[in-house]
Amino acid sequence: MADTSHNDIVTAAILVIGDEILSGRTKDKNIGHIAEYLTAIGIDLREVRVVPDVEAEIVAAVNALRARYAHVFTTGGIGPTHDDITADAIAKAFGVAIAVDERAVAMLLERIPKADLNEARLRMARIPKGATLIANSVSKAPGFSIGNVHVMAGVPSIMHAMLDALAPTLATGKKMHARSLAAGVKEGDLAGAFAAVQARFPDVSMGSYPSYQEGAGFTTTLVLRSRDEARLVDAEAEVSAMLADVKARLAGA
Amino acid sequence: MADTSHNDIVTAAILVIGDEILSGRTKDKNIGHIAEYLTAIGIDLREVRVVPDVEAEIVAAVNALRARYAHVFTTGGIGPTHDDITADAIAKAFGVAIAVDERAVAMLLERIPKADLNEARLRMARIPKGATLIANSVSKAPGFSIGNVHVMAGVPSIMHAMLDALAPTLATGKKMHARSLAAGVKEGDLAGAFAAVQARFPDVSMGSYPSYQEGAGFTTTLVLRSRDEARLVDAEAEVSAMLADVKARLAGA
Repeated sequence: MADTSHNDIVTAAILVIGDEILSGRTKDKNIGHIAEYLTAIGIDLREVRVVPDVEAEIVAAVNALRARYAHVFTTGGIGPTHDDITADAIAKAFGVAIAVDERAVAMLLERIPKADLNEARLRMARIPKGATLIANSVSKAPGFSIGNVHVMAGVPSIMHAMLDALAPTLATGKKMHARSLAAGVKEGDLAGAFAAVQARFPDVSMGSYPSYQEGAGFTTTLVLRSRDEARLVDAEAEVSAMLADVKARLAGA
Repeated sequence: MADTSHNDIVTAAILVIGDEILSGRTKDKNIGHIAEYLTAIGIDLREVRVVPDVEAEIVAAVNALRARYAHVFTTGGIGPTHDDITADAIAKAFGVAIAVDERAVAMLLERIPKADLNEARLRMARIPKGATLIANSVSKAPGFSIGNVHVMAGVPSIMHAMLDALAPTLATGKKMHARSLAAGVKEGDLAGAFAAVQARFPDVSMGSYPSYQEGAGFTTTLVLRSRDEARLVDAEAEVSAMLADVKARLAGA
């Protein structure tokens, strides 16, 4: 793992592996969970990719992402069936061997009677050489980390348990703080004034997020983000004042 | 747009543009909707990427994806505020000019009084040269298609309306059909026999999807997919027979 512990900014990508997400049959719930989790512990999620259960696609995505970001988190494809090819693809991406790992077998035997540990279930103990295991408190079959790539299950409750086990071992950065403001006016009415505030705070990221409800029309949420809480407080005060001005102008118009 | 109308397989990628998805503050609902929609009309979704509101990242992703897939669908970043940079990034990716488009202005004026059509709202009428507009029945501000890239809003209800307007214009392929079977046994008990059926049907994609509920434990859903319905019927019969065998073996054990 890259030693990024002295950096303010530690980046990450998520790689979701699975035909079922691309077909639309299963709706992904892992991206949002991991995104929120990483933000909370001081890791900046910079990219997400979803790829099919095709070895060459997984290898290419893993290698592109691990070269670029401090951490890569994968979900899916580590079960016992023939369509679970993630562990082999990761081994190929790193150019290392893969074999049944006795530490992983020991974990499986905590849950599975030895007589039931057939060839298919032993597939879940196949781990690339040099990897560290990630404990799975839900169903025992482990995930693993190799280099800066962290390989987790696709089943949400199991992925959550693995992320909890993994998080304390990760290099993290300075946390990004955020403030949300309900604007109370339409985006088109605040956009000019909001851009002017953004120009005065180049170190605070300012976004505007509309939502729409049939009948109620548009509402706008402004989100300010910075690693510097003091700057965030100042920016929030200016944005609040800007919103008051905009509302007064609209009321007077 | 590439003329792919005579091909059985028409591929696509989704590009989600937005810091708010990467921070975890907003949970994406568009990927699942578009994925299901494309499957239903005969387009194969092969990749999804989520990138931040950074021009260079959007340009790189658009150019990588449009070179590789028949269609690219983007969501997000086409509103009136300073953080909405998608239209400019798409123009840059295609190397074309971008300017206020009178057709788009006419659409905005269907909803917005002329006196309220300020500089910010006019940003929503900035369209890359050579693009075709995508109607927005919800709030009028249009999306657009340029080459094989289809640029849509991030607000789900608006994106849905744009996809409905866009879909009849798209080259599509032969539909992928699917059958789901509730296995009734654990993945590890069926994996070997399931792989054997898969080997006899290389033209039918077979996946196994576990889900886990606290207390109830694991359940397994098998999904078979093919463009050939007759083969799918045959495969489903073999998988059903396989499951009956596995259950009989487990009951006898």
